[in-house]
Amino acid sequence: MKKSRSSKTKTARARVAKKSGGADRKLKIGLIGFGTVGRSVAKILAQDSSGPLLLTHIFNRSIKKKKIGSLSSHIRWTENIDDVLSSDVDVVVELIGGLEPAGEWVRKALRAGKSVVTANKLLISEQGPELLDLARKMGKRLEFGASVAGGIPAIIGIQEGLAGDRLYKIAGILNGTCNFILTKMEKDGTSFDAALKEAQSLGYAEANPSADVDGMDARAKLLILIQAGLRLRVRSEQIPCRSISSVAAVDFMYAAGLDCTIRQISVAQKQTNKGVRLAAAVQPALIPSASLMAHAQGSQNIVTATGEFGGKMIFSGYGAGGDPTAVAVISDLYAIVRSSGAPVEALPGAAEVPDSVSGDFTVPHYLRFVVRDRPGIVASIAAILSKYEISLDALLQKPGFPHSALPFVMTLEACDSAVLDRALAEIARLDFHVEPPLCLPIFLD
Amino acid sequence: MKKSRSSKTKTARARVAKKSGGADRKLKIGLIGFGTVGRSVAKILAQDSSGPLLLTHIFNRSIKKKKIGSLSSHIRWTENIDDVLSSDVDVVVELIGGLEPAGEWVRKALRAGKSVVTANKLLISEQGPELLDLARKMGKRLEFGASVAGGIPAIIGIQEGLAGDRLYKIAGILNGTCNFILTKMEKDGTSFDAALKEAQSLGYAEANPSADVDGMDARAKLLILIQAGLRLRVRSEQIPCRSISSVAAVDFMYAAGLDCTIRQISVAQKQTNKGVRLAAAVQPALIPSASLMAHAQGSQNIVTATGEFGGKMIFSGYGAGGDPTAVAVISDLYAIVRSSGAPVEALPGAAEVPDSVSGDFTVPHYLRFVVRDRPGIVASIAAILSKYEISLDALLQKPGFPHSALPFVMTLEACDSAVLDRALAEIARLDFHVEPPLCLPIFLD
Repeated sequence: MKKSRSSKTKTARARVAKKSGGADRKLKIGLIGFGTVGRSVAKILAQDSSGPLLLTHIFNRSIKKKKIGSLSSHIRWTENIDDVLSSDVDVVVELIGGLEPAGEWVRKALRAGKSVVTANKLLISEQGPELLDLARKMGKRLEFGASVAGGIPAIIGIQEGLAGDRLYKIAGILNGTCNFILTKMEKDGTSFDAALKEAQSLGYAEANPSADVDGMDARAKLLILIQAGLRLRVRSEQIPCRSISSVAAVDFMYAAGLDCTIRQISVAQKQTNKGVRLAAAVQPALIPSASLMAHAQGSQNIVTATGEFGGKMIFSGYGAGGDPTAVAVISDLYAIVRSSGAPVEALPGAAEVPDSVSGDFTVPHYLRFVVRDRPGIVASIAAILSKYEISLDALLQKPGFPHSALPFVMTLEACDSAVLDRALAEIARLDFHVEPPLCLPIFLD
Repeated sequence: MKKSRSSKTKTARARVAKKSGGADRKLKIGLIGFGTVGRSVAKILAQDSSGPLLLTHIFNRSIKKKKIGSLSSHIRWTENIDDVLSSDVDVVVELIGGLEPAGEWVRKALRAGKSVVTANKLLISEQGPELLDLARKMGKRLEFGASVAGGIPAIIGIQEGLAGDRLYKIAGILNGTCNFILTKMEKDGTSFDAALKEAQSLGYAEANPSADVDGMDARAKLLILIQAGLRLRVRSEQIPCRSISSVAAVDFMYAAGLDCTIRQISVAQKQTNKGVRLAAAVQPALIPSASLMAHAQGSQNIVTATGEFGGKMIFSGYGAGGDPTAVAVISDLYAIVRSSGAPVEALPGAAEVPDSVSGDFTVPHYLRFVVRDRPGIVASIAAILSKYEISLDALLQKPGFPHSALPFVMTLEACDSAVLDRALAEIARLDFHVEPPLCLPIFLD
């Protein structure tokens, strides 16, 4: 006998709802924020009305404009946050972003005995450990799977799936806007400004793109991954960010000649031989064209986690957008259902403060100069590098550029980026530069 | 003031152990099986003796040979399984593999009120849902993160991290032995037999390699992923396996000409438009050389999960070996610590039986023939294909082979593999074949 899928599913779900206590005991959800992700969350929940999740409240400013007819008429819409916080919802889903008032509302919700699911990377990167402590104290859950890499289950994969390893390195492409811009520049040979404009017209980049292109957005996500995977507590200002805005079309030409491409790479590496040291940075970098990182196209994200026992693990997929991020939010809601709302015990070593934090990596580097050409330029640069005991690897110069603004590239053997910065400060004072030298690390693995 | 890492870590962990109830309340662990994975588990636990996990019992046949001096002298070694099952351990870690006696012992452990962590893919693929029901009935946990893809957190990633999506496709490279053999053949141009021998001499393949090369090992893992991700219950005999042993060195030459390579691909695709249908198979297949799957080198594994809302997610890493698999086992133990041993609620739709299961996919195909050359061969094959309304895409023939055993290749436009099988049965009856035709699907995404 064939049964339709929906009838079977409904029966199974009704059974589960019953088992979880009471005939109609569902997890009641209050949604704070009704933007792209909020709308996707509401849509997916509405499509699965027989499941254990029930959306009962939506808070949003100017709800008249946003109210959607296809959602259940039982949902209470409000412009007053206290209507949600003082209601009988079991879980508050916070999707307004930013530090305040989101932080205050999350704390209020936890103190009111509600679990919280949030996609707020800034809040979790700055206050995650304190908020988790508060949630545990209240016997409630705080879940933030959507705060990093949207739909990619990176946090649960790293924090729980790899809990048995000793992770020492986290790296990834964590900002879809930068990845869109850089893959666009790579494919079409366009300038940064043109690629940014296209990203803005498609809605991938904000009118003020600084948080994306200058690295702060990715840094907040990296901070969360450092907490979850390396179990270290650092402050955002300890991690340097370099903008992708100084990468030019010509850099992709030179990178291709080195079988590389350029991406915004976030990386954090823990060393424990002399105290606990963390090296972490967000910056444009050269990576091999054949690498997995280079496979992340357009707005895709990728996260790698390397451990002492398990080696390198890779998580990849769509890191942004309403639906993928909503998947992460709803997966967090299911996690609360599966555990019947019980709080999660802290694992050991969850918030160790490292002895030192720097943005320095000992790796090969790519230097691109644009100069008013004349004899002796390479010699004077090489002399300074030599003084700092930095070895030149290769010198690259493509034909077809004017002598008045001639780009050329040097690659350097592995050297400490702090030492190189000092050499570059000296090189930058030479008088032949048409624009400041660009220095990118080359990450080969 | 600088503190050493170990002192800080110990303090933090002692605090957690205390919070979990009682000054010395640790999760007591009994290990069943002391092979490669068991030894890695014991080694990693011994390195972290201040943590919340305490190994107290090890069961193994002929313990005298295996007993390791570096492990704590407090561990009780035994050759009698009842010593473990009747002990005060909280969790039994089952690492002996196979259906029996492992299944009986797991049931006994659950009935004795112990949680169970297992790496046993065969047991979970055959009896997973029943064992999970038993664990829930007893208020205990059954975790099996190590049963699929070793150290890659694929099960938790799919089952929990993507719980909010509606997954409809799971695919992957799930057998490291096959991947080692096929990447070896690809790189060195060696025969299947030579690559298998090397895999055996390196310990990657068993003396009897059938479970690996004929696909049954990967099928057991695919079954578990189908349960966890597609929430379908199927029997192993419903999923066809095709051996990689008929792939020859020449196939890699032809595949390269198509910008492809050959891997053992496990794939399961759910359709819900006319009842619930599942298409699933384990077989060698052509995949694009530039694809992520082709990136999995040697014994690496890769798992992809595609959902209605989140698109395609990728999990990749080391799928086998003692240490990576031990990471998965220990991560499962931490999951039990984090939840204080509380059982996990079943999610809805966890064991739906599909209305139909087949191994048929409508995709392009690669056909390789080895024939005694004579005029009219292509015409007679093409005539049969045409009768079944299958369209030829390309005909490839490399020079340099003898007329008495001439290999050539046809690629076909997308067609149903069941229809193609009927056409091939007819083609195989023609009298010019030196060996049976090889048919491989081409998976382009």
